[in-house]
Amino acid sequence: MSTNPERIYTAGLVVIGDEILSGRTHDKNIAQVASWLQVQGIRLAEVRVVPDVMEKIVAAVNALRAENDYLFTTGGIGPTHDDITVDAVAEALGLGVEVHPDARAILERYYTSRGLELTEARLRMARAPAGAELIPNRMSGAPGIRIGNIFLMAGVPHITAGMLDALTGTLEGGMPLKSETIGCWTAESEVADILRKAEQDHEGCQIGSYPFFREGKVGANFVIRSTDAEALADCARDLTRALEDRGNPCIAGGI
Amino acid sequence: MSTNPERIYTAGLVVIGDEILSGRTHDKNIAQVASWLQVQGIRLAEVRVVPDVMEKIVAAVNALRAENDYLFTTGGIGPTHDDITVDAVAEALGLGVEVHPDARAILERYYTSRGLELTEARLRMARAPAGAELIPNRMSGAPGIRIGNIFLMAGVPHITAGMLDALTGTLEGGMPLKSETIGCWTAESEVADILRKAEQDHEGCQIGSYPFFREGKVGANFVIRSTDAEALADCARDLTRALEDRGNPCIAGGI
Repeated sequence: MSTNPERIYTAGLVVIGDEILSGRTHDKNIAQVASWLQVQGIRLAEVRVVPDVMEKIVAAVNALRAENDYLFTTGGIGPTHDDITVDAVAEALGLGVEVHPDARAILERYYTSRGLELTEARLRMARAPAGAELIPNRMSGAPGIRIGNIFLMAGVPHITAGMLDALTGTLEGGMPLKSETIGCWTAESEVADILRKAEQDHEGCQIGSYPFFREGKVGANFVIRSTDAEALADCARDLTRALEDRGNPCIAGGI
Repeated sequence: MSTNPERIYTAGLVVIGDEILSGRTHDKNIAQVASWLQVQGIRLAEVRVVPDVMEKIVAAVNALRAENDYLFTTGGIGPTHDDITVDAVAEALGLGVEVHPDARAILERYYTSRGLELTEARLRMARAPAGAELIPNRMSGAPGIRIGNIFLMAGVPHITAGMLDALTGTLEGGMPLKSETIGCWTAESEVADILRKAEQDHEGCQIGSYPFFREGKVGANFVIRSTDAEALADCARDLTRALEDRGNPCIAGGI
């Protein structure tokens, strides 16, 4: 992986599919893509979930690609009539759509080896914006698609996972964001002043507070994030000390 | 619930929080809000996930409230420094922020009954855009906030659930979207032409195709959606017949 510590790289994600917006399917790709990006030194800056509607996809793709270094999409690259991501992205980029010869060959091999035919519907999965490259899909044949810094991936999470895996280490990123988590059996409202002060005192550190209710008690995990390992360690030490001085034993690593 | 069958009501959702974009927390509110809206006869038209950054929240709130009948937000209404949703929504609407007297009274009762003080940090949870109403929170005291057709809810899913429950039946909606699911142990690419034709033949019906791989076999659920019960039943009957005519036994209700 190429790393440029001098700047912050960001990505946008467009999640495409009526099934997410109807509540029928619980999205798993946001968390999966977000975690993967962290490791690449790229921050997920915004996600938009849009329906299988051409102009909605085009608008989201154009908005997020303008604001970010990378754009990812999940969903809508299968063989059925509601799979219109390729057409929408081509439209957003002002490109034509064509059958990618390598994708066609991959699908031919995949279906032939299973004694099946490459029907017209299946051939839809070989369509790509003109000039695109393929992202290997070790799970189910039909590849993902890369056009410059735009990545079209499957909607089914384990297929998306395989595609992300194929991309690991290939994108230029900045310094990965590191984090330290400190857990406390306290209400976050008890220590809000301490959190605020710790963040102010340590430049380049952000502190998130994530309350929970477990085993009949309130608690919270405080997550400090920074690209600077030393600043992170200093902030974690000072925050722990301040919390413990107020009578809140801290659990390093979180609860 | 007031129902106006003559038109389609839509909602936007802004999910606020660095913890979702970092992949640390798996969002559960998109699916929860989406399912709840369906029952109210309101369609979730778009979701944006944004970080705890003022201008990002303001931009998402303004974009989605302009396009939809209702706007919901989740996250960022707690007591800590990174909870800025109230300020961001007030800014988006051009309103001031004030301590809501009823919210203050609720928090006072809540903390007093637990032998705790209403500290400055906790009092943050009583802040609301000027003129707002409260959404009851039976789980943890701090209420949600309603300003016209904008609803600010908690980020913690079980608290959000309680707030949605309090709103059930209070919003004007259109005809609820009904759905029928037909499951088949077939690859969706085998029957893509059948799906397309069924959708074309039945006006007002949309068909989504949701493939899966289970028990070593590929299958798919086909979900037909319509506000028209009769059109839905006709479409389901014709689709089932066409699938079975091609040798694919159908499982009504899905697999």
